[in-house]
Amino acid sequence: MDKMYAYDLILKKRRGFEMTTGEINFLVDGYTRGDIPDYQMAAWLMAVFFQGLTLRETVDLTMAMAYSGTRLDLSTVPGVKVDKHSTGGVGDKTTLVLAPLLAACGVPVAKMSGRGLGHTGGTIDKLASIPGFKADLDIETFRRQVQEIGLAVTGAGPELAPADKKIYALRDATATVDSIPLIASSVMAKKIAGGADALVLDVKVGNGAFVKEVDAALSLARMMVNIGNSTGLKTVALITDMNQPLGSTVGNAVEVEEAINTLRGGGPEDLVNLCLALGSEMMLLAGRAKDRPGARALLEDALASGAALSKFAAWVRAQGGDETVARDPSRLPRATRQVTVTAHAGGYVCKIAAEKIGRAAMLLGAGRQVKDAPVDPAAGIVLKKKVGEAVRKNEPLAVLQTNRDYFADAENLVREAFALGPTPPEPRPLIHYLVNAEGAFAYEEVEG
Amino acid sequence: MDKMYAYDLILKKRRGFEMTTGEINFLVDGYTRGDIPDYQMAAWLMAVFFQGLTLRETVDLTMAMAYSGTRLDLSTVPGVKVDKHSTGGVGDKTTLVLAPLLAACGVPVAKMSGRGLGHTGGTIDKLASIPGFKADLDIETFRRQVQEIGLAVTGAGPELAPADKKIYALRDATATVDSIPLIASSVMAKKIAGGADALVLDVKVGNGAFVKEVDAALSLARMMVNIGNSTGLKTVALITDMNQPLGSTVGNAVEVEEAINTLRGGGPEDLVNLCLALGSEMMLLAGRAKDRPGARALLEDALASGAALSKFAAWVRAQGGDETVARDPSRLPRATRQVTVTAHAGGYVCKIAAEKIGRAAMLLGAGRQVKDAPVDPAAGIVLKKKVGEAVRKNEPLAVLQTNRDYFADAENLVREAFALGPTPPEPRPLIHYLVNAEGAFAYEEVEG
Repeated sequence: MDKMYAYDLILKKRRGFEMTTGEINFLVDGYTRGDIPDYQMAAWLMAVFFQGLTLRETVDLTMAMAYSGTRLDLSTVPGVKVDKHSTGGVGDKTTLVLAPLLAACGVPVAKMSGRGLGHTGGTIDKLASIPGFKADLDIETFRRQVQEIGLAVTGAGPELAPADKKIYALRDATATVDSIPLIASSVMAKKIAGGADALVLDVKVGNGAFVKEVDAALSLARMMVNIGNSTGLKTVALITDMNQPLGSTVGNAVEVEEAINTLRGGGPEDLVNLCLALGSEMMLLAGRAKDRPGARALLEDALASGAALSKFAAWVRAQGGDETVARDPSRLPRATRQVTVTAHAGGYVCKIAAEKIGRAAMLLGAGRQVKDAPVDPAAGIVLKKKVGEAVRKNEPLAVLQTNRDYFADAENLVREAFALGPTPPEPRPLIHYLVNAEGAFAYEEVEG
Repeated sequence: MDKMYAYDLILKKRRGFEMTTGEINFLVDGYTRGDIPDYQMAAWLMAVFFQGLTLRETVDLTMAMAYSGTRLDLSTVPGVKVDKHSTGGVGDKTTLVLAPLLAACGVPVAKMSGRGLGHTGGTIDKLASIPGFKADLDIETFRRQVQEIGLAVTGAGPELAPADKKIYALRDATATVDSIPLIASSVMAKKIAGGADALVLDVKVGNGAFVKEVDAALSLARMMVNIGNSTGLKTVALITDMNQPLGSTVGNAVEVEEAINTLRGGGPEDLVNLCLALGSEMMLLAGRAKDRPGARALLEDALASGAALSKFAAWVRAQGGDETVARDPSRLPRATRQVTVTAHAGGYVCKIAAEKIGRAAMLLGAGRQVKDAPVDPAAGIVLKKKVGEAVRKNEPLAVLQTNRDYFADAENLVREAFALGPTPPEPRPLIHYLVNAEGAFAYEEVEG
């Protein structure tokens, strides 16, 4: 075989041809080792942005990245390990609810999670707001904890899909993040490296999500489901609405508090329903239920009985955190300042621009503007109104929690985020589609 | 004004928006200084490949690169300085003929030329095959020589459009060379920095040229003519045929010999006609003739009288070379080995794949496979047949000149390059179009 050159592979993709498995491996391995320079990879990524990748190429890219480090071996953990991944939304604390809820139902949860790079923190940042909680477990501790209590969540170490880390950082600097095959392969590479047997994807769509249109969300979901199912990772996706923040809180400690309230049976409707829907798919993949109504009943029982909340407490204790937050969430960090944002006029809430709420939370200290910056666990936003509710003039829309002295920009952003109108908007479904190996189905038809 | 970020400019171009002059300057200046890394520039260049640049953007890019170093000041040289540039073909020795021919007609020639990166050497490599010839003059010597004998040619120094050099090297490594606005701006930036008042472009089209189709050649020519005329450099282009090598020689010393023969009145028809056509446009731009027939007559006189050949000798002497080559070209370096390639069958020459001839010449030592490699001045190919000629079986098609022991690949390439058929092909025009500020015109209609 002729010697390969990165130049020729850039040209091939630029011209729109399909690359071979060997060519994709050469590119990913060479780049990860440092033999192929950033500028050639950047040119290839931009060519991919314009020319796309076939499913076969995307699968190859995924596998090359997934196996660029060591794949986590969960074979000593009994049962079907089901992972869950969200493409990212504002106020998304479902993992904090789902992890103990599924563990309480006998589904082992061994989850590696990333730190948030966006407006608000990731799951690891949220967990870190619990006093004492250790979010960086070594592999042995992690595995042992899953065996002992059925549940562990840790930050992803550098050994997990290092090729994806390096390529993602380059995409982030070269405006090549928002390409469906590149997003799909990045997510799936991490999930495959994470060692799970099955995966439920929460593909967010709407103004607060990376993907704004249902069609694009379906393309992304189909591609990820295809990658998963063609590489032995059983994968199902739900396309879910992100046209307002999920639940009523955005931040770190405030989201943990809301998750605890949900585990105690007092969660907001949209968060509870989304957790039950995602949780049902996880139960089905784990073989813990025969159908969706059966799965849902088991999950609801675990919430009502307190089993899920107890599991949460056990989890927090196992990872060194203050488990009493499960009974008394007021022990979570509180900001020094509470600022109420009120409505300048009355009406019905037609829209809450989730992206603006997320940006406001970041300005209050809850998220990162640059990589590795610290986040303030106490900072965040509590929404007092959600889409469809009536608001009177001067009534509170939200409360900002911050330790900062300057918060006018955040206040303005939050007020701007609320679009009020004379009549309530048409209700939107929370879950649009289910996508599995058989195809895409309107969720209301499969819900059962 | 908001602070600019390279990231935003990549995204803007990726989305197909027109960039401002300030944004293009920021990118070119930042990259040249090293503030913007290679990988961001590579991503931007690939986005440009797909989204293109408007004329205005291309002019801005050209000017930013042209003024990234010092522009050559030719104001002390009296007369209209006319430069000539070829987009690159196989066997193109027109500069070796045109420079002394124009100087003999009173048009000052002050030319900065590049070394060839392609299959065969550039003008500087060809000149360097003349024993003693110094092709790297300092600016003062260069200017003085133009004043004294009306003619100097030197290699372009690093101070000439350094931004173009850096960007070109990156394009060369990232498969972003063949973009019309990027090619046009690169050529024009160097020409503007070179200090000429007017420019004649020889845009080659055909199997031996970078541009294979007349339409693409017209686009490239129009863009360069537009850039020139909108930046004060009077520019005219001819679209000329490169479906066989120009003249009968490909290499360095062999091309110098053919140029000398042309100056002595014994040149091959296509080379003579192309030199007269390009030379006429240069004469018109320099104001030395009123119309094309008048220009052509002056040029033909200078060839017939020996004035052009004398000017060539004076030029070689001025740059330290052995001027006796003008009388006796056998003093040029000769290869140790002459290999005759014969026809395996008879017929008419329908095509000579110029690119294969060029590749064969490189394999014989005449060109560079990698940057800065030395070239063998004696290596090259002499064609014994051109398109349209009849060939008998076993008759010579070409003679290879080489100092290498292995030449079978070159021999095969040359034989492959000759396509023979039962009847002579339709004759093709040597010059297809003239492109100037008024538009594009079929050359036969303006030839006069």
